[in-house]
Amino acid sequence: MGTVVVGFVDKPEGEAALQRGIEEARLRDSRLVVVSSHRGGDEFDGEASIHAEEALAKVEGILADSGVEHDVRHLVRGFEPAEDLISIAEANGADLIVIGLRRRSPVGKLILGSNAQRVLLDSHCPVLAVKAAQD
Amino acid sequence: MGTVVVGFVDKPEGEAALQRGIEEARLRDSRLVVVSSHRGGDEFDGEASIHAEEALAKVEGILADSGVEHDVRHLVRGFEPAEDLISIAEANGADLIVIGLRRRSPVGKLILGSNAQRVLLDSHCPVLAVKAAQD
Repeated sequence: MGTVVVGFVDKPEGEAALQRGIEEARLRDSRLVVVSSHRGGDEFDGEASIHAEEALAKVEGILADSGVEHDVRHLVRGFEPAEDLISIAEANGADLIVIGLRRRSPVGKLILGSNAQRVLLDSHCPVLAVKAAQD
Repeated sequence: MGTVVVGFVDKPEGEAALQRGIEEARLRDSRLVVVSSHRGGDEFDGEASIHAEEALAKVEGILADSGVEHDVRHLVRGFEPAEDLISIAEANGADLIVIGLRRRSPVGKLILGSNAQRVLLDSHCPVLAVKAAQD
């Protein structure tokens, strides 16, 4: 059974990645591993940590409803999210990584975030980049 | 019937994108549109043009063997490849764009090329980024 890995962030593009990851896992008859990674440290204090847990509880609910075989990994171990995502994809022999990208505003010049670039460049498996639905 | 669009370049990463595009079109029961885009101008002289035609003849052969419904578009109209790719994806209501990325060398610091960044940021549909098989 193949594995699709989703890089989840609690933002519209992260939700889009989760939804698309569920669809891709269904299409490929694969299991889904959802990775939520925080570096931790001072910025990840009590409140941020509670928000992260709430977001993941919601993710668990969506996954349970999807009927797709799944696993959620919440990592706070001091690594960049891209590193955690790539290492979990490799450890699981993933066939596909799904990440969310911010949508470029009509006037905004936006370059890809460093985490997205790193996943795209360093991942051993193909990376599917999705955006949040347009408002 | 859905549409998968492949951005083809005559390089290992372009061949990887073509192969993966064929697989994705099969998986989704979609048709495949392969886009080869050159800006044209002085650099695209007789020899470069002949090489491009030879590469596309090979692509046509691979597509015919694949049994996937397909269409090849060779554009030389002065636009950046990213622009051509995105406009063809939109015109065909594509569900997915597949592009190839250069593999980062073990020591090399490589940022994503401007065409890849542009497709990733500006495409309305999800973008699957694949790399050539490792030597």
